[in-house]
Parts: sequence; C-alpha cells; structure tokens
Amino acid sequence: TVNGHRLWQSLMDLAEIGAYDDEPTGLRGVNRQALTDADAAGRRRVMAWMEQAGLTVRIDRMGNIYGRREGTDPTAAPVLTGSHIDSVATAGAFDGCLGVLGGIEVVRTLDERGVSTRRPIEIGVFTEEEGVRFGIDMLGSAVAAGRLSLEYAHALTDRDGRTLGGELARTGFHGPADVRLDPPHAYVECHIEQGPVLAESGVEVGVVTGVQGISWQEITIHGRAAHAGTTPTRLRADAGLAAARITVRLRSMVDSGAYGELRATVGHVAVHPDLTNIVPARAELTVDLRNPDDARMARAERDLAAYPRTLEDDSPGLTVAIRRMARTAYVPFDERVQKVIAQAADDHGLEHIALLSGAGHDAQEIAALCPTAMIFVRGEYDGISHNPREYSTPEVCAHGVDVLATALLRLATQ
Amino acid sequence: TVNGHRLWQSLMDLAEIGAYDDEPTGLRGVNRQALTDADAAGRRRVMAWMEQAGLTVRIDRMGNIYGRREGTDPTAAPVLTGSHIDSVATAGAFDGCLGVLGGIEVVRTLDERGVSTRRPIEIGVFTEEEGVRFGIDMLGSAVAAGRLSLEYAHALTDRDGRTLGGELARTGFHGPADVRLDPPHAYVECHIEQGPVLAESGVEVGVVTGVQGISWQEITIHGRAAHAGTTPTRLRADAGLAAARITVRLRSMVDSGAYGELRATVGHVAVHPDLTNIVPARAELTVDLRNPDDARMARAERDLAAYPRTLEDDSPGLTVAIRRMARTAYVPFDERVQKVIAQAADDHGLEHIALLSGAGHDAQEIAALCPTAMIFVRGEYDGISHNPREYSTPEVCAHGVDVLATALLRLATQ
Ligand SMILES: NC(=O)NCCC(=O)O
Ligand SMILES: NC(=O)NCCC(=O)O
Repeated sequence: TVNGHRLWQSLMDLAEIGAYDDEPTGLRGVNRQALTDADAAGRRRVMAWMEQAGLTVRIDRMGNIYGRREGTDPTAAPVLTGSHIDSVATAGAFDGCLGVLGGIEVVRTLDERGVSTRRPIEIGVFTEEEGVRFGIDMLGSAVAAGRLSLEYAHALTDRDGRTLGGELARTGFHGPADVRLDPPHAYVECHIEQGPVLAESGVEVGVVTGVQGISWQEITIHGRAAHAGTTPTRLRADAGLAAARITVRLRSMVDSGAYGELRATVGHVAVHPDLTNIVPARAELTVDLRNPDDARMARAERDLAAYPRTLEDDSPGLTVAIRRMARTAYVPFDERVQKVIAQAADDHGLEHIALLSGAGHDAQEIAALCPTAMIFVRGEYDGISHNPREYSTPEVCAHGVDVLATALLRLATQ
Repeated sequence: TVNGHRLWQSLMDLAEIGAYDDEPTGLRGVNRQALTDADAAGRRRVMAWMEQAGLTVRIDRMGNIYGRREGTDPTAAPVLTGSHIDSVATAGAFDGCLGVLGGIEVVRTLDERGVSTRRPIEIGVFTEEEGVRFGIDMLGSAVAAGRLSLEYAHALTDRDGRTLGGELARTGFHGPADVRLDPPHAYVECHIEQGPVLAESGVEVGVVTGVQGISWQEITIHGRAAHAGTTPTRLRADAGLAAARITVRLRSMVDSGAYGELRATVGHVAVHPDLTNIVPARAELTVDLRNPDDARMARAERDLAAYPRTLEDDSPGLTVAIRRMARTAYVPFDERVQKVIAQAADDHGLEHIALLSGAGHDAQEIAALCPTAMIFVRGEYDGISHNPREYSTPEVCAHGVDVLATALLRLATQ
C-alpha cells in the first residue's frame, strides 16, 4: 500500500497552484487551464516531484511530460501510467491530478520498498486534456498516439487567438523529445469517476470498461442587428433566439429517448453586440454530445445538423454554420488489463464494479498504442466534477492508488 | 427650408467620432456609447458647433447639454428641441444625431435669414438615451424631467462596475447647471423612425402620436457547474438551458397573440464558466419588452415573472431572480403640438401620416413637463436601426428638419 497521507498532501499542494475563491460554492476552486502561467507553475512543481523521486524527465514537442523509472531489462517496453494536470475554469483538486500524483506516489513507494521491476515505469502528464482552451480534449495524448498531427495541434488557437504552439514556447514547454510515443507494454490510468455510479453503488473502486463517444461542435449563427423596439417580429433575424432554440432542441432530443443514453450540453454561448435593445446579430455556441452507442451518436449528430435548416427557413437572413471541434467514438478498454486491475483490487480487499466512463480520458488515446484500462475512484456529492465541490476522501484516493500500484507492478514484471 | 447639404455634412462628420468597421455588414458603423471617450469627443464637437452658431451652452449635473438662442421676450419660456448623440455598439449615423444636428441647423438657418423669435429656442443633448451602458434608457431626460433622481442615476454602474457619476467626472461632463428643467413652452424632437411604417407607406414624414411602453428586466439564474460527460441529465441544474428556455418562451408569448402587439428581445446573454464541457453554473440575460397597450404589457410581465417557478420546479438546485432595470408606460403626445407639426409638413408640401413610436425617445420624458410631440423621418431598408445599415437619404433628412424649423418657429412665436 502507498503512503496515502503523502499522496493527499501532494494533491492539496498542487491545488494551490491556480486556486481561486469560487463564489457560488464558497469553496476554493482550481483554474489551471492548459499552458497558462498557472499550468506552467503546476508543471514545474510536478517535474520537481518527479526529479525528487529519481525519475528521468523528458518533455516532448506537445509539452507532454514523461518521468521514467528504469527497469532491469533495458530492452523491455515500459508500462505507462499518468493523466493530466490542466483543469477547467471551475475545477476541484482531483481531476487528472490523482493519476499523475498517484503515479509519482507509486514510484516513491516502490523506491522505499526497494522494489525493482523488469520493465521501466513511466508517468505521462498530457497537455490540454480538458480541451477547454484550444477546443480539443485529450489533445496531447491524441498527438502522442498519432491520431492528430503535431502541426495541426500547434496551430489551434484559444479565444484570444493565441496559438498552442506559441503558448508552448512562451511557457517553456516546447520540449525536444519526439512526440510520437513508442508503444508501451500497457497503460493504466487512475482517475476520479466524476459521476454518480460508484457513489450510488457504494463501492470505492471501479474497473473502467471503456469511454463513451464524444462529439463537440461549434455553431455560429449570423442574423441581423436590429432595434428591439421598432423591428416587427416578422422582420427579425435573431441570432440569439436561434441559439436558444438549438439549446432547447438538444434537451428535447435527450428527453425523447430516441438517441439512447445521449447527453447534450451547451457550455458556451455568446451573442453580439450583446446589448439590451438590439436583436443579436451574431451568436456562437458549443455543443457537447456524449453517447455510449456510436450509431445513436451519429443519428443525434445528423439530426442536430439538419435543425439549422428549419431555423433558416423560419427567419430569412439567418445563416447557421456548424463546425466539428472534436470527435471520438466509443473506445473499449483491454479486457486483460481490466482483469489485472480487478485482481489488484481483490488483492487489496476492495470491492469493485465495472463501469463505462462518461468523461473522456487520455487512456482512450493511448489505447490505440497498447493494451489499456482505467481505475475509477469514487467521488462524493453524486461524483460532481468540473465544479469546486469535486471531492474524494483521502482514504478512497489512497485505495485507488493502491490498486494502481499493484496493477503497475504486475504489468511491469510481465 | 434649411441647408440640407450642411445638415448632411454635420451628420457625416459626427459619425466619424466613434466609427468602426462593421464586419457583418461591411459598412462603417458607429459605437459611441454614453460617457465613453468617443461620446465625450462627440459632445465637444457638438458644443463647438453650438458656439459657432452663437448659442449659449450650459451643462447640467447629468451631463445634459443645452444650447440657447435668446428670444425677444426675456420672460417667455423657451421652445425646446433636441435628442441625443450617444449610440449603441452597432449604430448608424442618424439615431439621435438627426434631432441634435437638425436643431443646430434650424438655428443657423434662422440666423442667416435674420429671423428672431419671441421665445428662446433651446437644443438639448441628453445623456445615455440608449440605456445600453448604464441599463436605463432616456436616462438624462428622465432626470431632467424629475422622474428619476440624480443620486440614483449617478450610482448606476456599467458592466465593468464604473459609475455614471464617475464617468461624468472623468469625461468632464459633470456640469454645474441645475438638472431639473424649468418647464419649456413646448418640446419637438425630430428623429429617424427606426422602423418600417413610413417605408411601407411610401411617405417621408410622420407625426408621432406617442411612444409604446418599454419594460427591461435582468434575469440571473444560478444552477450548478457539472461535467458535461458524466453528469446524468436528471442531476443537472443547467443555468444556460434555463436562459434558453426563457428566450424561447418569450418568442412563443409573442407568437401566441395573447399579448397584443408585444415585442420581446433577449439582447444580452452570458453563461459561466462558459466552457464546452461544463454545464453552466450561472446565466444572465436581459429582456426587452415593448407594448403599446399598458394592460397587455402588465400581463406579459406577470406571465414572464411566473415562468421561473416552472424552471425551478423542473431542476432542483436552480434559482431564478428577476430585477427590473427600466420601465415606461405608453406615453401619448400632445395633440396641439402634433397639429403644429402636421401643419408645418403641409406648408412644405410634404405628405405625412400619424404613427406610434416603437422606440423610446427623450420626448417621452420631456412630455411630463410640457406639450410635446415628434417628427419621424423615413429610413431605408425597412427602417433598420441599431445596425450600421441604418440610413435616411439627405433629402428626407432635410425635409424632416424643414418641418422641425417651421414647427419650432410657430411655437416660438406663440
Ligand atoms: N476527465 C475529464 O474531465 N476530461 C475532459 C474531457 C471531457 O470533456 O470528457
Ligand atoms: N431611439 C432609440 O433607439 N432609443 C433607445 C431606447 C430604446 O431602446 O427604445
């Protein structure tokens, strides 16, 4: 078993970097979006911890950081673990960080016990997993796995027009290492569940069977600015109303049940000129769709794509453009790695259940390179996440990392 | 008749102050919001023109500017004309400016012809008519007319928290003159229609019978930030969805016909944290309602106020707060002043029709002090306004100001 107190301490320390006082919850939240100054400070802290733990650290050209503990067999492919430390704007202390700091805690424990492994163990810290700054989630791991190109990723821009490549250079995280990862032997990621399944079942640990599909779209609507008092309703091309209609429509698609387990979220919306007595000339919104069933996801996307035509027909002068930001299909995890995790939980006397991930994770990208699975840790308060109320107890975090340690050890001696 | 060329030149000159390149229309627009640097520059230009025209200029404690041409009877109450030069963010050259520059052009014409009047003629330039910066339209004239207090107005803040009082001081327009206006003999304001009625009837000039009611509300919704991928729909308190539902609901209230000639606009909407994969924790929107019928307006307000209860019942954890920003009832204009305007149009051989104003105007505030009415001038392109496409031809503008000149002359000799 790992040192749960030390693990907790590092989680709390890292959460101070990018911390802010969250008004609605009255709690201390974390805002450490990818490649901001706060993220860079967090990265430096993590690299210092890696070096203290004797790891050899390298940074690749996507800013992904790897810390390596050598094995006894210099020819053996490493076992990889890790996650991310970038956060959304209203985050807690756990999302991503548990996987990274858990990996470091595993290494510290192996060192203390004098345990060596045949295979090297590497801890990856992937860039822009959240996708909230540059528009694509799991971005660093997607480039490391070869699904997206480095050039494409470097050219992505944030809302202020700053490129990811420029921000890598600015923060000093444009590393020299090759971004394409040599296939590891296996990848195991420990993460908080971020949902209610474990909380509802009363179990601390989950063995993740896969990740549901994710589809992100950006919708831009052009209407016509007009005076709110004088313009008859029939002469309006109201871009804000169209955005609202799409938002309400998505919810009725979800409620209809026609798309299975579809979830739909409009997390971002903006109108211009954004003033009380002007019919909005332009609106912009993002749509986040999730579905464990690829066929039903495709149907939801098709029906969403068809809806703007109705809006355009209703309002002459209105145009709606949909751009796909990010898209991943359902990703099943490797059954043997799931078994290793389940066995590790059994070894620790921890009850566990199998469950599908509602959130995207770096594991789903690395799964293209090697056998992969994940360990989920129970969250409190219905597993709420992307909210400062996100919380897992020190005990449950330690139990998750115990399972990680045992699974990594088993895989690293294979 | 006035010098239409000189009038047009001053409209075009003033439109350069606060000008910007408007992307959607490809036109040059005007963004000269109240008490910004651009507005201050515009005010200085207008004051210079007033002084060149021999007017005595005073500024009151709301930043309202008055230029006075003396009459022959020192005891007679003045005839007032005017309007505003502040603009929305996506304005054209005419809204408000036609009334102010038209007033100055009338004075220049009287001077050239050596015409003196029994009563003084004053031109008012009122602060924050648009209401888009400090949240209340016709603000300067409302304080001048005594409907709102100076203290209340000074304490209003813009979105960045700057007070109106502070901005008056910063721009140098916190004048010494008493803000409460001594009742003028009459008020006549010339303004572009900003709507399609004159364009559809083919007539250049309208005699305005009154202004419909205006109700502005700010709605703030508190929900709960949550992960877009993991949070089951039933556990969400989605503030952005609630904002969208209110927006769609307002449109169906309009379409129902149950509220007569109701118009409804959501011009401003913002969500927080405003990121793709986070269910919005908070949303804020403005509602602009217009209705020529006070009873139907009150019913629309009541029904809007009742709707949040439905939203709160649907989504435990969601709260909706409505705050009234601004409210004016239907204001009828004085019939005798309307007759003077109609007669003036006849004198110039101009066809005219009577119509109600869809937009709010300073005239509706001054109407509390003295007999008041307005002259409307036809706009092109369905009379579009609050959009850089706003346009009235030089001829039509000149004709409107011809009518203003004749009406002011008649009233000033009474
Ligand atoms: N774990 C996590 O929050 N990932 C962000 C990507 C997503 O939106 O699912
Ligand atoms: N004339 C004009 O645009 N006034 C602004 C107040 C309103 O919104 O009606």
